[in-house]
Amino acid sequence: MFIDRLIANIKRTNNPTVVGLDPKLEYIPIAIMDKSFKEFGAGFAGVSDAILCFNKKLIDAVYDIAPAVKPQLAYYEMYGAEGIRAFAQTCAYAKSKGLIVIADGKRNDIGTTAQAYSCAYLGKVPTLGSENRVYDIDALTVNAYLGYDGIKPFLEDCEVHEKGIFILVKTSNKSSGQIQDIMAQDGKHIYEKMAEHVDEWGSGILGEYGYSSVGAVVGATWPEQAKVLRQIMKKAYILVPGYGAQGGTAGDAMNSFNSDGLGAIINASRSIMCAWKSEKWSQKYDESAFDSAAREEVIRMRDEINQALQSR
Amino acid sequence: MFIDRLIANIKRTNNPTVVGLDPKLEYIPIAIMDKSFKEFGAGFAGVSDAILCFNKKLIDAVYDIAPAVKPQLAYYEMYGAEGIRAFAQTCAYAKSKGLIVIADGKRNDIGTTAQAYSCAYLGKVPTLGSENRVYDIDALTVNAYLGYDGIKPFLEDCEVHEKGIFILVKTSNKSSGQIQDIMAQDGKHIYEKMAEHVDEWGSGILGEYGYSSVGAVVGATWPEQAKVLRQIMKKAYILVPGYGAQGGTAGDAMNSFNSDGLGAIINASRSIMCAWKSEKWSQKYDESAFDSAAREEVIRMRDEINQALQSR
Repeated sequence: MFIDRLIANIKRTNNPTVVGLDPKLEYIPIAIMDKSFKEFGAGFAGVSDAILCFNKKLIDAVYDIAPAVKPQLAYYEMYGAEGIRAFAQTCAYAKSKGLIVIADGKRNDIGTTAQAYSCAYLGKVPTLGSENRVYDIDALTVNAYLGYDGIKPFLEDCEVHEKGIFILVKTSNKSSGQIQDIMAQDGKHIYEKMAEHVDEWGSGILGEYGYSSVGAVVGATWPEQAKVLRQIMKKAYILVPGYGAQGGTAGDAMNSFNSDGLGAIINASRSIMCAWKSEKWSQKYDESAFDSAAREEVIRMRDEINQALQSR
Repeated sequence: MFIDRLIANIKRTNNPTVVGLDPKLEYIPIAIMDKSFKEFGAGFAGVSDAILCFNKKLIDAVYDIAPAVKPQLAYYEMYGAEGIRAFAQTCAYAKSKGLIVIADGKRNDIGTTAQAYSCAYLGKVPTLGSENRVYDIDALTVNAYLGYDGIKPFLEDCEVHEKGIFILVKTSNKSSGQIQDIMAQDGKHIYEKMAEHVDEWGSGILGEYGYSSVGAVVGATWPEQAKVLRQIMKKAYILVPGYGAQGGTAGDAMNSFNSDGLGAIINASRSIMCAWKSEKWSQKYDESAFDSAAREEVIRMRDEINQALQSR
């Protein structure tokens, strides 16, 4: 079951940190770009190879100390078919190193179209007389504005193929409240209504620790809302974006954990991928040691979160 | 400007019908599959070639009588990099025939990630020292559960690159009400709140007929809600799914039009792609004439919609 695999990795590494793989061009060291461009040209093929090489070095640097990676699909999709290939190869490499892979795609649609997305990311895709995996990933982020019709196919594949989903509940960005904070006539916010659905939809897919393979996304930037949401979705694992570059701290993320010390994973992307540029590490590392800086930052983040958890 | 190009095509063809290109495997004639599988094997490469051949024949059959096509990304994405290539080639072919291309991706994210999606689908993607188009499309469907932060990058590219977006407001499926029909404390439904945002966000990108390049999605299955939404978003072009196979009729879609006879486009996918199998056309056409049947169905749908418009 997805959620048990995730928790096993968190326990093994004693770390709820997810390493975001958002390979923006400006994050990739020049030496990697040069090499890829020489071999594949400066177009999408070269960029995609550089992304893959960059990701592999990051994965090599963190696979034994972090439980999971979260590639953001947009940064691969933007390079067309070549980018998608780099995404697939990144996921396969991360899996080969024992990491849990959460694809951040925020996919959403209805009926057979939602089914098509689910086949692609969680299940298998039928062709003539056979079924094939497209990507080797463990979980996908999804948007449930369309209601249960859009989630049902994913739930089925979560069961059959032992995969997971994380449903957007309260996103980390400033304007998330325009829809999510609207208060309904019964006094509940939309994010609470969404959380009630997450709790219900996930109630049938529980693992050995009592957590569901149907998780939720709640930004580190909204600690007060997280406190309420944690109570509504007691069994959901909460994926917490917004740490670091977006301003959320380990303290802000604490409300997404349960008293068992489990229940949340905290994502950081830029602060890990570009750690060597930061005030914290720029004295010690240069661009060529971006991977060592990323490792140090993951360790620092792990210790910061564990300290915050212990001093609650 | 996108919206003026769309309206010009609707006027030229006297037809507000959008041909959905949702190439499910079971829709594709066996002769096309056989040929592609012989050349590229029965895996994703063969399937993707079959999809492209199928789409091209459909496009050839309708480009002079329909204003636009709407490829649904899920049905391409499910075949990985090969599928994405078939998507890109389908879009390019449709554009070469003068069709407006609306990619149905329901993409959503925030900040620089939303920007990455927008670059890919509406704008240009920077690589080293150059900017490149990934796909040749005119508009993208998007999901605004995340609020303005997630829409802003698309709005900018709508202006700069003369593209369009259609924002999900009230989707055609049965469970759309779980979130969209929640009534806020001010007595407005979430779909009305979303519509107010669509109206506001699109107010700066108006074309010569007074319509905005920021449109909305409102299902044909909700005619009463469409009446209200039409009033809130007077300047938005409404993309109407749910006609035909999902049960919506031309009459049901009338509330999405304005009194000028403009303001809405009605999508049909399966009823056109599989017209030869339907009761209406199966006496006249067999599988090998699926394209001729599709053309007849587009003409029938055009006439039905125009008749409904005239008898209002």
